[in-house]
Amino acid sequence: MSARLLNGREVSRVMREKLGTQAQQYSRDFGRRPVLATVLVGDDPASHTYVRMKAAACTEVGIESRRVHLDAGLSTNAVCAEVRALSEDPNVDGILLQHPVPPGVDERAAFDAIDPAKDVDGVTRDSFAAMALGTAGFESATPGGIMRLLDSYAIALSGRHAVVIGRSPILGRPMGMLLLARDATVTYCHSRTADLSSHVESADLVVAAVGSPGLVRGEWIKPGAVVIDAGYADDKGDVDFDSASRKASYITPVPGGVGPMTITTLLEQTVRAARERSMS
Amino acid sequence: MSARLLNGREVSRVMREKLGTQAQQYSRDFGRRPVLATVLVGDDPASHTYVRMKAAACTEVGIESRRVHLDAGLSTNAVCAEVRALSEDPNVDGILLQHPVPPGVDERAAFDAIDPAKDVDGVTRDSFAAMALGTAGFESATPGGIMRLLDSYAIALSGRHAVVIGRSPILGRPMGMLLLARDATVTYCHSRTADLSSHVESADLVVAAVGSPGLVRGEWIKPGAVVIDAGYADDKGDVDFDSASRKASYITPVPGGVGPMTITTLLEQTVRAARERSMS
Repeated sequence: MSARLLNGREVSRVMREKLGTQAQQYSRDFGRRPVLATVLVGDDPASHTYVRMKAAACTEVGIESRRVHLDAGLSTNAVCAEVRALSEDPNVDGILLQHPVPPGVDERAAFDAIDPAKDVDGVTRDSFAAMALGTAGFESATPGGIMRLLDSYAIALSGRHAVVIGRSPILGRPMGMLLLARDATVTYCHSRTADLSSHVESADLVVAAVGSPGLVRGEWIKPGAVVIDAGYADDKGDVDFDSASRKASYITPVPGGVGPMTITTLLEQTVRAARERSMS
Repeated sequence: MSARLLNGREVSRVMREKLGTQAQQYSRDFGRRPVLATVLVGDDPASHTYVRMKAAACTEVGIESRRVHLDAGLSTNAVCAEVRALSEDPNVDGILLQHPVPPGVDERAAFDAIDPAKDVDGVTRDSFAAMALGTAGFESATPGGIMRLLDSYAIALSGRHAVVIGRSPILGRPMGMLLLARDATVTYCHSRTADLSSHVESADLVVAAVGSPGLVRGEWIKPGAVVIDAGYADDKGDVDFDSASRKASYITPVPGGVGPMTITTLLEQTVRAARERSMS
């Protein structure tokens, strides 16, 4: 093992300390804590766990979380109506709609029912356009968290070749756009890519975000490359850690790499949303 | 010369014939022609020419064009107010804001003053998100035109490696998103890319869209690759045509390749906007 670990847990700890101070200051200034509404549709056990973890992290930094649990059988319209009510509720600063939603619900419609000013998880069309075009808005929490992690280790991005594996609307796609905005040369690979290894072999930075355990093999990694594992299937990463860590200069552990940064970004954006809403 | 020409002029001719019929049918159904408002800010001679060409193409297919010419010295707010008035005008179906706008005007703000339902040139944040996320909306005219050109020659995209050179918000960026939606592996290169030739050498499809005459050299082109030249500086392309056409399987001429397809896409989307607005 020669790679240095990108310790998302430690970076998060430091960031959350600062956020705690900011949340306290907010409470003093406005007489109430910032509020994140979490919306869970249905009974997926993993989604339950994620929502619980996010609520616990809110409490830890002084954000109030309000949990909304909707029945799995609700129609798209009914879910959108609930989300819209939170968008209009003056006492809610940020909204997190836990994904995936049940197959009967149009996820895109439900995401876009979130007021962009409260979209602290960065899932609306508006937030995507903001990341892609550099306008004001929130970032998708996982790619936003990865950018914060890279920055906290002062990893240079300009002119480097970044290969993003995966193209989901809230992870791979915005990840590439955020890296492009920072002047990386960006390649999007995915399930239809003809020769994944050849692309990875030329990458200075690899972000794997597909949920396919062990997909990325150590022998593909260019010596000295930075490897980010945003995989999430069965608690296992997309990257074969042991072999990749012998080639990479920096690598994220799973768990303790990207996961905590995702939640920290959500918290940071919730505090920011509260302040921006109170100022406007 | 071994490459086959991607004849945008001829493909456009056929498409515009069909659009003429559709525009006529629209006029019969709704008692008026589809209307495109063109907005020109300032006196850039090239922009004048483009607007004139687009207005002439409108006339040719039976679209009414309404030309709005604004003073170069107007503020962003004043330009946005004019665009917003057109967005609200029930007699306008589509709006084209000719770019570039003068340096004193915030182009992004002016673009986003266009009602997405009238954004037939595909320049708003909303249209970008639609192209990137696959939701309903209009395409940026040049990348949309390139997709139509590729499709009219039945060029396969799934799993192919596409290299897009340039990342402007209405050309390179949406180009990559449209190719990704069609399952290409997509690399974005740009001015900060460290080794442009190495990326181009691995491309099955190259789209050059920077406005740097002769930037892409024939010796970089993989034998049999498809080469699209969306360059536009001084009427010269980004690709060295003579050398590239000896390696490529298909190549666009400049002029007569991408240019006519851009205008045809604008016309097509104007007719579609008119019909969609009349139906809703």
